[in-house]
Amino acid sequence: MSAQKDYKLWLQYNKVEDATILNSYRSTIKGVHAFGNSETIAIATKEIEQGLSSLLGQEIHKINNENSANIIVIGKTSELSAELQQNIQKDIRIINNEGYVIKTLNNNKQVLITGKTDVAVLYGVFHFLRLLQTNQSISNLAITDAPKINVRILNHWDNLNETVERGYAGSSIWNWQKLPDFIDQRYIDYARANASIGINGTVLNNVNANALILTPQYFEKVTALANTFRPYGIKVYLTARFSAPIEIGKLKTADPYDPEVQKWWKDKTAEIYKSIPDFGGFLVKANSEGQPGPQNYGRNHVDGANMLADALAPFGGIVMWRAFVYSEHNTDDRAKQAYSEFVPYDGKFRDNVIVQVKNGAIDFQPREPFHPMFGAMPKTPLMMEFQITQEYLGFSTHLVFLPKLFQEVLQSDTYSKGKGSTVAKIIDGSLDPHKLTGMAGVANIGSDINWCGHPFAQANWYGFGRLAWNPNLDSKTIAEEWLRMTFSNNEKFVQPVQEMMIDSREAVVNYMTPLGLHHIMDTGHHYGPGPWVSNLSRPEWNPVYYHKADKNGIGFDRSSTGSNATAQYAPEIAKEFNDIAKCPEKDLLWFHHVSWDYKLKNGATLWDGLAQKYQEGVNQVGNMQSTWGKMKPYVDEQRFHEVEMLLNIQHKEAKWWRDACLLYFQQFSGKELPNGVEKPTQTLEYFESLKFPFAPGNN
Amino acid sequence: MSAQKDYKLWLQYNKVEDATILNSYRSTIKGVHAFGNSETIAIATKEIEQGLSSLLGQEIHKINNENSANIIVIGKTSELSAELQQNIQKDIRIINNEGYVIKTLNNNKQVLITGKTDVAVLYGVFHFLRLLQTNQSISNLAITDAPKINVRILNHWDNLNETVERGYAGSSIWNWQKLPDFIDQRYIDYARANASIGINGTVLNNVNANALILTPQYFEKVTALANTFRPYGIKVYLTARFSAPIEIGKLKTADPYDPEVQKWWKDKTAEIYKSIPDFGGFLVKANSEGQPGPQNYGRNHVDGANMLADALAPFGGIVMWRAFVYSEHNTDDRAKQAYSEFVPYDGKFRDNVIVQVKNGAIDFQPREPFHPMFGAMPKTPLMMEFQITQEYLGFSTHLVFLPKLFQEVLQSDTYSKGKGSTVAKIIDGSLDPHKLTGMAGVANIGSDINWCGHPFAQANWYGFGRLAWNPNLDSKTIAEEWLRMTFSNNEKFVQPVQEMMIDSREAVVNYMTPLGLHHIMDTGHHYGPGPWVSNLSRPEWNPVYYHKADKNGIGFDRSSTGSNATAQYAPEIAKEFNDIAKCPEKDLLWFHHVSWDYKLKNGATLWDGLAQKYQEGVNQVGNMQSTWGKMKPYVDEQRFHEVEMLLNIQHKEAKWWRDACLLYFQQFSGKELPNGVEKPTQTLEYFESLKFPFAPGNN
Repeated sequence: MSAQKDYKLWLQYNKVEDATILNSYRSTIKGVHAFGNSETIAIATKEIEQGLSSLLGQEIHKINNENSANIIVIGKTSELSAELQQNIQKDIRIINNEGYVIKTLNNNKQVLITGKTDVAVLYGVFHFLRLLQTNQSISNLAITDAPKINVRILNHWDNLNETVERGYAGSSIWNWQKLPDFIDQRYIDYARANASIGINGTVLNNVNANALILTPQYFEKVTALANTFRPYGIKVYLTARFSAPIEIGKLKTADPYDPEVQKWWKDKTAEIYKSIPDFGGFLVKANSEGQPGPQNYGRNHVDGANMLADALAPFGGIVMWRAFVYSEHNTDDRAKQAYSEFVPYDGKFRDNVIVQVKNGAIDFQPREPFHPMFGAMPKTPLMMEFQITQEYLGFSTHLVFLPKLFQEVLQSDTYSKGKGSTVAKIIDGSLDPHKLTGMAGVANIGSDINWCGHPFAQANWYGFGRLAWNPNLDSKTIAEEWLRMTFSNNEKFVQPVQEMMIDSREAVVNYMTPLGLHHIMDTGHHYGPGPWVSNLSRPEWNPVYYHKADKNGIGFDRSSTGSNATAQYAPEIAKEFNDIAKCPEKDLLWFHHVSWDYKLKNGATLWDGLAQKYQEGVNQVGNMQSTWGKMKPYVDEQRFHEVEMLLNIQHKEAKWWRDACLLYFQQFSGKELPNGVEKPTQTLEYFESLKFPFAPGNN
Repeated sequence: MSAQKDYKLWLQYNKVEDATILNSYRSTIKGVHAFGNSETIAIATKEIEQGLSSLLGQEIHKINNENSANIIVIGKTSELSAELQQNIQKDIRIINNEGYVIKTLNNNKQVLITGKTDVAVLYGVFHFLRLLQTNQSISNLAITDAPKINVRILNHWDNLNETVERGYAGSSIWNWQKLPDFIDQRYIDYARANASIGINGTVLNNVNANALILTPQYFEKVTALANTFRPYGIKVYLTARFSAPIEIGKLKTADPYDPEVQKWWKDKTAEIYKSIPDFGGFLVKANSEGQPGPQNYGRNHVDGANMLADALAPFGGIVMWRAFVYSEHNTDDRAKQAYSEFVPYDGKFRDNVIVQVKNGAIDFQPREPFHPMFGAMPKTPLMMEFQITQEYLGFSTHLVFLPKLFQEVLQSDTYSKGKGSTVAKIIDGSLDPHKLTGMAGVANIGSDINWCGHPFAQANWYGFGRLAWNPNLDSKTIAEEWLRMTFSNNEKFVQPVQEMMIDSREAVVNYMTPLGLHHIMDTGHHYGPGPWVSNLSRPEWNPVYYHKADKNGIGFDRSSTGSNATAQYAPEIAKEFNDIAKCPEKDLLWFHHVSWDYKLKNGATLWDGLAQKYQEGVNQVGNMQSTWGKMKPYVDEQRFHEVEMLLNIQHKEAKWWRDACLLYFQQFSGKELPNGVEKPTQTLEYFESLKFPFAPGNN
C-alpha cells in the first residue's frame, strides 16, 4: 500500500543519486539560517530544511549563527542584517515584489535567498530546491528571477455538490461539508505545490456559478481556505453569478444600472473583505451558454464588469470577465463572435477589469490558431485562459504534454504592432503596457490520490505554473525539469521521456483532429469521436458545423470567400490564413473548405494526407508505448505500471478515433484508404452506436 | 506531504516498539517458507514477508529449506509435506474451507499457517500478523479459527456516475471510465484490506440500481474488478434492476411469470458467468422507494426472487433479496410493514435466496430495537444488513464506533426458540440451520485518501468485517485490536481511546435521538436535526410521523393500544416492549407515547430526563475531546490533528442537535429546561431556517 509517490507530485525530494553531485551539495550545505518569523518564513524554513534533508540524505538543521559558513540564509530583504542587505542591494532593486535573489556570498560560502516579501523568499526557496532536484550546480549562484505576469491563477470548475465540471480526477478537493472547521491536509499540500511553481491565485468554484457561494454559510468556508492559502502567497477568488442579487439578495432585478443592484454588490463585496481582507476578486461568465448577464437587461459587458469592478475597487479586488461568448441567435461563425462582441469595448473597462480570453476562438481544442482578440484590444488588459484539464484531449487517460500547446499559442505572432508581437508579449503587458496582467488555467485537480488522474497530467499543472511565471519558457525545459523532479535524473530516462512528452501533443492532434479539424468529439461529454453528430438543438454544438464534410471536400471556410474570420487578424496574418496556398497546413481545415483531391505539400491528396495523419497519430502513441516500456529500470513499479496501462488505453482510443473518423469521412470522399493506413476492424454503424451516458465531467 | 498513514488503514505494520517483545519475535522468526504457487499464495507470501520485515525492522526472506528452524511455513494443507500434514490432521478436520490453523510445531520451532484453501492460508497469514501488530505472544500457538458466516459482504451504494449514495468520503472508488484497462492500485489495496478481515464479497453498485451495469460495456469492467479481487478471496456481486429486461432487453414487460423475461434473465446470467465464472449473484431492492419489482405485475417477492434464483442456480449464484419495504399506500405503521409483507412467505424461497434484513425496522437509526423479522422466518435464511456509512449518525464527521451498535443488535435475544435465541444465532444459521448465511455492510468507502472520511470511521469497516467473521466478538476487543494495529500499542493510548470509542455510540444516541426517539433528522440528506419537518409528500418520510410530540407527550405508540408493532416480537419480548413500565428506557419512545410528566427510573420527569440525555450527549463528546487531547504523544501529528478538528465539529453539532430538538419539543411540553442543561444560544426559528442543499450523499 503506497500512496506516496503519486501524491507527492514534483516535490519528491529523492536523495541525490550521483555521488559526486551529492558530495558537492553536502559540502556546500551544512545548515539553514532564517531571518524573520512570519508564518510564510516558517513555512519556507521548514520546506528548505525538510527538502534538503531528504535530498542530501542527512539532517539539515537550523543554525542560529547567521555568520556560519556553508549555510543557506533566507529572509525578506528588510529583515536581513545590514551587511547582507548591502550584498544584494543592486539585485533587489530590479525585481518586483514577488521576485527573488539567490546569491552565493563568497566571503563565507553562504547562499542567500531573499526578496522584498516573505512570499518572494518562499519562491526563492523552491527555486533553490529545484536546482538540487534537477542536479544543477549550486556554486557561485547569482540568480534574480521575478514573475512576468501578476495574476497566475487556477480556475476550478468545482461545483458546490463536490462534482467537478470537466474534471477527470475524482471529485472536488474542496470538502464544503467539513469546512470551515476541518482543514484537510490536501489544502495545505495544494497550496504548497502551487507556491512551488509560483501560482498566486485560485478561483474556487465553477464559472457556471451558483450564487450560494456568496452567502455567509459559504463565506466562512471560503475564509477558512483563504486563511490556509495566505501564507503560501495564494489569494482566493470566487465566481460571481450575475443574477445573485435576485437569487440570494431577494431583489427583483440584477440590472447593473439599478442602484439597488449596485448597492447590493457593494455591500456583498464589503462583507467578503471583512473576513478575507486580501480577497482577490470575481471571475464572471456572463451571457454565455445560458449564464445570466447584463444583456438580460439590455446592458452590455462593460456595464456588467464595471459595476462589479466599482464594488471591488476600494478593496483592491479585480474582475476577470470572460470573453467566451457565442449565441445561438447569432448566425455568424461562432469563431468570430467573441471578437465581434468585445473588440468595440476596447478601452471602456475600468482599470481593475481584465478580460479573460481562451487561447483559441472555439474551445480548448487539440489545436486552434491563437484567438484573434489577442492584439486587437490594446487598451484593455487581456488575460490568457488555458485549459489544463483535458476536456477535449483524452480526459485523464491520454498522455498529452500541454505546455507544448501553451507555448505554441504564447509564441504565436499577432503582428498587432508589427513582427514580434507575440501573444506572450500581449498578456505579460510588455507590448501594450498594462499594470494588470494574468494567466488562468482551468485546473485538472481532483480527489484522486495522484491529484490529476494520470501521473503525466501532473506535468500540465506544473507547466502551466511555470509558463504563468514566465510565458517565454521553452516547453522542453519544463518537461525536463519536471521529469527530473518527479521521476529521475538518469539521462537514460530524461532524454527519451522528454522527447515522448514533447511529441505527445502532435500525436493527439493527429489521431483526433489533424490538419485543422476541430470540435468533432462526441457530444456533451466530449469523449471519443463524434463527427457524425448533427442533431443538437444549437447548430454550433454539432460537429458537422465544424468539419462541413461533403462530396466536394472538408473544412470550414473562414476565408474571405466564407465567414471571413481571417479578417479579424492583423493584415500580415490574415493574408496568410486567407490564402489556401500560404495557410499553414496544421490550420488548413480550420480556415478552408478543401477539396478531397487538393495536393498537400508532400504531394499527397488531402484525403490520403488526412488518413496518413490519423495513422501517424496512432503510430506516435505506439512509439510512446515503446519508449515507456524501456523505462522500467528508472521508475517505481506502481507509477511505471500506471503509465503503461494508460498508454495502452490511449493507443486503443487513438485507433478508435482514426477508424471512426476515417470511416465517417470516407462516406464523403468516396476514396480508398491509402497504403500504410490500417483497415478499420469495426463498422461505422458500430462506432456511431457507442454511448457513454456516464462519461465523467459532464455535470 | 504525507498520505501514508491515513491510507494504510489498520495495516500500518509499524516496527514493534517494546524491545522485549521485538526481541522475542525476532528470535522466533528468521524466514518464511511457502508451499504452493497460486496467485493467492504469492500474495500471502508477499504479505507475510513485507509485514514481518516492517514489524521486526529487519528483512524477512523466503527460505527454501522447509525444514529450517525459526521459520513461518505457509501453504494449503494438501500441498504441505506429508509430515506437516500429519501434524495438523485433527485441527484441519474441524474447520470449514475458509478456516485456518496456526500452530507452533515444537520439534523445530516452526509456525505453520495452513487451511484447506489458499484463501484460508491468506486469512491465517493476516491473523498471524495481527498477533504481532497487537503485541501478542507467538509462542506455542495452537489457533484454529473459521468464519461463522458464509457471505461476508460489502454493499456499495455507488452510482455509475461515480457518486455514492450516502457516501461521505469522496466519490466512488470504482473508476468506471478507466476500467477495464486501468487497474487502480486502490482496487488491490481494497481487496487486501478486506481479505485482512475476512470479507469475501462485494456488491459493486447501488441498490437503487441502473440496468446498464448488466450490459457488455460494463461487464468487461466488472470482469476486470472480479479478476483483481479473486486472488484475495473476494467475489463480485451486482444489483439487478428488476425492470432491466425492459430497459436494456427491449422486452415489453419484466413480469417474472413471462417466459421471455425468465429466458432473458437466464441468458443474461449465463453471459455474466462466461466471463466471471465465480460471480456471486444479485442483490435486489424491489418494490421499495420507487424501485420496480414483481408487484408491478401483480406478483410477489417470492415470484421475483425465485425467478432470479433459478437463473443463478446452475452456476452456484445467490439472490440477496432486500426486505426493506414500506409503502405510501399502506397506512399501517411503517415499522410493521416489512414483517407483514415477508413473514407469510417463510419457506417459499428457493435454496439460493437469502432475505436481507436491516438491523432495525425503520432505517439505520442511532438506536433501533432489533428487527422483528429476526426469528420470525425460521425456514428462510435471513442475512443482516448493517450500515457502515453513517447516514444517520453524523456522516464522516462524527466519531461513532459502530461495532458497539452492531453488537447490541447481534446479542439481542429474539426468544424465537426460547431464551438465548440471539440475532447472531439466527444469522449464523446455528439456531435454525441454514447452509446459506450472510452479513452485509453498506460501505463507508470512497476516494478520500483515508478511504472513510474520518480516521476512526476506518474502525467501522474493520469492525464490520470482524463481526461478519464472528458475530459473537466483543466490540471492546475489536476496538482494542484496531487501535493497536492502526495507532499504537502504548497502554496509555489504548485504554482511554478504547473507552472513548465504546462510549461514542451512546453519545450519538444521546445528542441525536435519546430514549427511543428516531428519524428526526433533517429531510433528504439526513444532516442535522429536523424534528419540525412535516411537509413531505409521503407521511412516513416526515420526522413528525416518528416522534408524534404533542401537549400530552412524545413517542410512537407501538404497543397494543397503538400500532401493535410489539406483537410482531416473540411473546416474551412483546410483553416487555408492550408494557411501559417494563420497556427498556432506551426504547421507551420507540414503543410508547409518553406523558411529559412520566417518571423515569431515575425519578426525573420525561421532559427533564430527555433534556438531560441531550446534555449528556454533548458532555460525552466533550469528554471525547478531552481524552483525545491527551493522546498527542502517541499519534502522528496529521492524524492527531484531523481527529481533533473532527471532534470539534462533532461537539458543535451535538450542541446544535440538543438546542434545536429541545427548543422544538419545548413548544409541546411547555416546560423549562432543568438545571444542568445549557440554554440554547439561538432561536428555534434560526435552526429551522438552516438549509443544506449540497449536503453530500443525497444523489
